[in-house]
Amino acid sequence: MTKKKCALFIGRFQPPHKGHLEAIKKILGANDEIVIVVGSAQSSHSLDNPFTAGERILMLRSVLKEERIDPARCYVIPLPDAEMHAVWVAKVIAYCPPFDIIYSNEPLTRRLFEEMGFTLGSIPLFHREIYDATEIRRRMLADEEWQSLLSSCVVSLVEELDGVGRLKALSRSDKKGD
Amino acid sequence: MTKKKCALFIGRFQPPHKGHLEAIKKILGANDEIVIVVGSAQSSHSLDNPFTAGERILMLRSVLKEERIDPARCYVIPLPDAEMHAVWVAKVIAYCPPFDIIYSNEPLTRRLFEEMGFTLGSIPLFHREIYDATEIRRRMLADEEWQSLLSSCVVSLVEELDGVGRLKALSRSDKKGD
Amino acid sequence: MTKKKCALFIGRFQPPHKGHLEAIKKILGANDEIVIVVGSAQSSHSLDNPFTAGERILMLRSVLKEERIDPARCYVIPLPDAEMHAVWVAKVIAYCPPFDIIYSNEPLTRRLFEEMGFTLGSIPLFHREIYDATEIRRRMLADEEWQSLLSSCVVSLVEELDGVGRLKALSRSDKKGD
Amino acid sequence: MTKKKCALFIGRFQPPHKGHLEAIKKILGANDEIVIVVGSAQSSHSLDNPFTAGERILMLRSVLKEERIDPARCYVIPLPDAEMHAVWVAKVIAYCPPFDIIYSNEPLTRRLFEEMGFTLGSIPLFHREIYDATEIRRRMLADEEWQSLLSSCVVSLVEELDGVGRLKALSRSDKKGD
Amino acid sequence: MTKKKCALFIGRFQPPHKGHLEAIKKILGANDEIVIVVGSAQSSHSLDNPFTAGERILMLRSVLKEERIDPARCYVIPLPDAEMHAVWVAKVIAYCPPFDIIYSNEPLTRRLFEEMGFTLGSIPLFHREIYDATEIRRRMLADEEWQSLLSSCVVSLVEELDGVGRLKALSRSDKKGD
Amino acid sequence: MTKKKCALFIGRFQPPHKGHLEAIKKILGANDEIVIVVGSAQSSHSLDNPFTAGERILMLRSVLKEERIDPARCYVIPLPDAEMHAVWVAKVIAYCPPFDIIYSNEPLTRRLFEEMGFTLGSIPLFHREIYDATEIRRRMLADEEWQSLLSSCVVSLVEELDGVGRLKALSRSDKKGD
Repeated sequence: MTKKKCALFIGRFQPPHKGHLEAIKKILGANDEIVIVVGSAQSSHSLDNPFTAGERILMLRSVLKEERIDPARCYVIPLPDAEMHAVWVAKVIAYCPPFDIIYSNEPLTRRLFEEMGFTLGSIPLFHREIYDATEIRRRMLADEEWQSLLSSCVVSLVEELDGVGRLKALSRSDKKGD
Repeated sequence: MTKKKCALFIGRFQPPHKGHLEAIKKILGANDEIVIVVGSAQSSHSLDNPFTAGERILMLRSVLKEERIDPARCYVIPLPDAEMHAVWVAKVIAYCPPFDIIYSNEPLTRRLFEEMGFTLGSIPLFHREIYDATEIRRRMLADEEWQSLLSSCVVSLVEELDGVGRLKALSRSDKKGD
Repeated sequence: MTKKKCALFIGRFQPPHKGHLEAIKKILGANDEIVIVVGSAQSSHSLDNPFTAGERILMLRSVLKEERIDPARCYVIPLPDAEMHAVWVAKVIAYCPPFDIIYSNEPLTRRLFEEMGFTLGSIPLFHREIYDATEIRRRMLADEEWQSLLSSCVVSLVEELDGVGRLKALSRSDKKGD
Repeated sequence: MTKKKCALFIGRFQPPHKGHLEAIKKILGANDEIVIVVGSAQSSHSLDNPFTAGERILMLRSVLKEERIDPARCYVIPLPDAEMHAVWVAKVIAYCPPFDIIYSNEPLTRRLFEEMGFTLGSIPLFHREIYDATEIRRRMLADEEWQSLLSSCVVSLVEELDGVGRLKALSRSDKKGD
Repeated sequence: MTKKKCALFIGRFQPPHKGHLEAIKKILGANDEIVIVVGSAQSSHSLDNPFTAGERILMLRSVLKEERIDPARCYVIPLPDAEMHAVWVAKVIAYCPPFDIIYSNEPLTRRLFEEMGFTLGSIPLFHREIYDATEIRRRMLADEEWQSLLSSCVVSLVEELDGVGRLKALSRSDKKGD
Repeated sequence: MTKKKCALFIGRFQPPHKGHLEAIKKILGANDEIVIVVGSAQSSHSLDNPFTAGERILMLRSVLKEERIDPARCYVIPLPDAEMHAVWVAKVIAYCPPFDIIYSNEPLTRRLFEEMGFTLGSIPLFHREIYDATEIRRRMLADEEWQSLLSSCVVSLVEELDGVGRLKALSRSDKKGD
């Protein structure tokens, strides 16, 4: 087996957007394979994490297909949070094929891998003020335009899954109290 | 066994108040049996969840007795939170007798059961601005009148358990820091 | 509130049988109230724990009704296992109304409560060689007569839930391996 | 999006062998897509579960590549065990893309999905007395021939990972005691 | 074995500072032994809990040595959080040698031990507006002077561990979003 | 701070015996400091793990004192099991001061540390057929002589804690069944 250069790309993908896609393309431009880790895989049905891991995997795979990215070069791996930050890197290693470099913009992830001696790649910024999942979820709740920030296949999946309806239902303030 | 219509009523009951009691009566007016789920059963001794599951069960059972509600028609079931929102409905089903309809004002609970195809009942509002556990806990901390919002037997239990003292102790800001 | 004598009775009730019923009657003969704890509530669908907590609660409540035992004197409380044996008693206390005496034939439960200074009641033996849930599950799997060991309402529920079918399905040795 | 027929195939793949490969081929003969669930993903470094989820994913992907199975038709998803059997199906659904039919030879998995109303496919037997991961691990420990039961790329990976050395180290009886 | 008076002292020690040291000295002035519990032992790499349990133990032991406090009189015990507040006291008891009195300024800890009938000691205040771990972490992030609030050996360890660098890295707001 | 050579010694110490003591002495002969990890700290009140972490720490500290081993050279750290074997080493690192070498006779522990590149020390055997905690617990249950295998201070503590009574109570077969 020839040694390939493999990159780890960690995100929550709530939902995957065009900024993620650009990052995946850049990473694949510099590496043979990419392991896309769908983090906080246990989370769903909350304002910050509306989609299940399965839904996010479906979206990511659709994007790869739509963009004709070779699926043989991509792993998509859901990963639940660890019991302790200090074991997170070990958990990532246990769930993933071996990797040579790690890409993430999340400060905690970057620090944890750095302390373990890993090489950190930097993800080129791509209109970061809008290609941002927090901004996208905000727009969904506010009935603003969000579709242009996502690949068309993800837009279809969000609609099929009633993603906006789910977000709005979860945001409904409970007036009756408890 | 004749098929009875059974309703699920989910709350945290921190503490159970007259609004809950009205809801239970309305639900029993439309159903043969009620399964009262005491949610977040693992929580206690916090500002949002001062009472243990056992204390909340004791309060609910006292109310049922005081109101001469037939205990044979009521289940009171403590339920700890699930590891994932996406398995919450399955966990409720596993801990409860079969039910036909679900009553809750909590947006997450409503959405999760709705996505699983359950029938949702709506709880008639009953002076919701005051019959609200958050408001009641606020009054307890502020030394305002809270007793009229609870059944008299619950007032007695709160006093017996030193509920207000517990809330105040927990709210004490830790001046020495950490 | 007059102080009542309340007894804790802990079991797994997989399923509840006539030995359990006799114990409940004896305990209620000596106490005002009984808290029936359905232990290992998180377990189901295994050879030792075939029934869910909800199914076991349904069975216990049916027995109480069939036997015309006053439901106002009985609590039926599902309880998942604790993270540590050493916190088990504290967890029981947190999930249950206050109790004065504890009945269990399980050595670990007895020892844990004893070390915490609780009074232990002894459950009178009632044809223990047959009124035993392990024996009942063995008979179910072996197609031997098991119905006479259960109250008739529990027999009906086991049949309605396809309990024997579930046990047999779970016991099927996986010939293909893994 | 055209509706494709998607099959779920659940195993532990400790390690993936030729029996698994035959099953994958048969399933892909009858379905458009396959979701291969790598169960007990949290387990590794034990006699029954020697390999990590990452190692098992690597092996499965290598087999798919060696066999020129279109990766666009395959999902490989690691899944940790659930806190309760009764929520297992809900957890699988949350981690996976939607599926129409489920293939497994594990009695518990079959029963749980059956009770939830899923269609169960049967995996054709393929020399089941030898294509069995338990038998393969036994041979590895006993220094018997095991290589012919695995695809050649998996044999390479087992050797690269010192899989047999790991198994033997874990089986070493601890003579000094504790 | 002569009965010694043993005190429990619970904190998070993020990091241990001169206020903690004064408390330890006062407690040892009134007791034979001290059990220093390093709480939230599972936490690290967050703004509130930057240091691992191991790092905090190292710091505490260095302070004891620097101050020539007899190590035979001190236990330093890391303790992860409990699954429920209501079992926290039982968990502390299970992890620690027997103790007679408990010192803590944390309201929850105080209340939980008080409800269990323990004697609570009060920790004399010592310039509490500055000897406070929250204030110390704030200064570290703000590049203000923090060194004088810690024992010199702890300052050395914080520097050796790049504690300030870790805090700053974790506080970096993730401008790229998610 | 001068760099000291620090050794990790992992065991369950159920209970600590003379074999452990010999090992500690040998390890301290070759290292400056020893970190004694009390593993499976969450376990107690079972036949394999009768004693709580706190009780085991008390026993170990008593032995160190009785043997006049300098407590400034010893850390005694309770450690609960990890959620996954693959994160165990990372968890040990997070709970302990830095160490240079690891001593354990447990095959899993040895393998996990070896795969992470740690140096493994070997513990010289010392009458291993009797200085073995399993053998000691067996003798306690069988009313055979066990006292000579433990340091006298541990014998006293076992008696004070009614250790043999606890073991026997837990071993009592539950004749009534369940």
